[in-house]
Amino acid sequence: MKSSIAVRPTHRGTNFSPSNRRERRRVETRERIYRAALRIFAQRGYLDTTVEDITEAADVGKGTFFNYFPTKEHVLATYGDERLAAIERALKKARTPNQSVRPVLRELATDLAGQSSESPDLLRSIFAAHLSCAPVRAELQNRLQKGRRLLSEILAIGQERGEIRRDYSAGDLARLTQLTLMGITIGWSLNPDSILRKSAEEVWELFFPNIFADTRKKRKATKKLTA
Amino acid sequence: MKSSIAVRPTHRGTNFSPSNRRERRRVETRERIYRAALRIFAQRGYLDTTVEDITEAADVGKGTFFNYFPTKEHVLATYGDERLAAIERALKKARTPNQSVRPVLRELATDLAGQSSESPDLLRSIFAAHLSCAPVRAELQNRLQKGRRLLSEILAIGQERGEIRRDYSAGDLARLTQLTLMGITIGWSLNPDSILRKSAEEVWELFFPNIFADTRKKRKATKKLTA
Repeated sequence: MKSSIAVRPTHRGTNFSPSNRRERRRVETRERIYRAALRIFAQRGYLDTTVEDITEAADVGKGTFFNYFPTKEHVLATYGDERLAAIERALKKARTPNQSVRPVLRELATDLAGQSSESPDLLRSIFAAHLSCAPVRAELQNRLQKGRRLLSEILAIGQERGEIRRDYSAGDLARLTQLTLMGITIGWSLNPDSILRKSAEEVWELFFPNIFADTRKKRKATKKLTA
Repeated sequence: MKSSIAVRPTHRGTNFSPSNRRERRRVETRERIYRAALRIFAQRGYLDTTVEDITEAADVGKGTFFNYFPTKEHVLATYGDERLAAIERALKKARTPNQSVRPVLRELATDLAGQSSESPDLLRSIFAAHLSCAPVRAELQNRLQKGRRLLSEILAIGQERGEIRRDYSAGDLARLTQLTLMGITIGWSLNPDSILRKSAEEVWELFFPNIFADTRKKRKATKKLTA
């Protein structure tokens, strides 16, 4: 329990040869720069943060930063990629034979919120950058497309197994689910009067049962999507 | 069909005495300033817009602006108040005896989205200001509180009439509904790959049946909120 927070997993089970030590140092340094960058983004806004601000906060030389991240934008991309990686892990799990997709989706929904729970300041800073800067937004849209495809695959697996309703396409379900989950994350950061993970769980429990096949007994009012 | 867009309703059924003409001019001028302000917010961002930018776009003197809006912030407040007014109208409708709250809520959800459908640029500008400026955000939180109380009243009426599920408090349902509806509006503005009103309708049809009492037959997986 004595090593630092984020790099611990990379230590485990490795041998302690010099080359591994070098690799560990690299991972540690990258992580330190990354965490410092997020801290500064939260404090002064993504757009107003310079690479110098980050290297100063991380206590590394400017050249060191560029060994790990070609630009500040790449730090932001790493943040987005963590969310994509969570969806990829969920898809891998959903592909396991006899695995119900229901707990996989639930875990994903709360995990995505949990990843962001740490800091409403950071979320606001990141979303403000996306809202006010077209190139930053283009990157997000690109990632949203990828995320939607992965989520759509999970939902299609659920449809094949009879768990997810089939009167909506997996693509439509993925689009609306993604919009809702991203939306509550931003909405929460504007008015963080609760725990984000808890709100995400509550929204999931309240609204999402309707995407599952087994809770659809009497739904006269819900019409088929006419895309 | 010859009068301008936004002021038309105020003309109808009024008599044309000089004092009414003065009042009509006031309404027209206020509306012209307001629309010009929103246009400029959308173009260059709320925070970067000055009162001069607005009066120039509206083709009025700077003094005229201050006859209608004490500050630029009051223009934004008007935008927020339009949303509150929509919830107030819905509450009034819901209070009508024998009025089902279901169509009232559905109309409200799509109306709120419809009000915002015009311009993703404007939405992004306004939400960016809320995300990056604490006093602007405080105003929003204040309005969200009021909106939540109104929505909660509508939901409580539905609960009394047996239309809305009672295992959640009206306040919890209002909080989660508001978070979701505001969220999809911001989320959409970041990635406007569909019509907002249509997305809001789809989210409503897909996710919201679960707040109604009559669609709850088999919901083993949905547990009661433990606040």
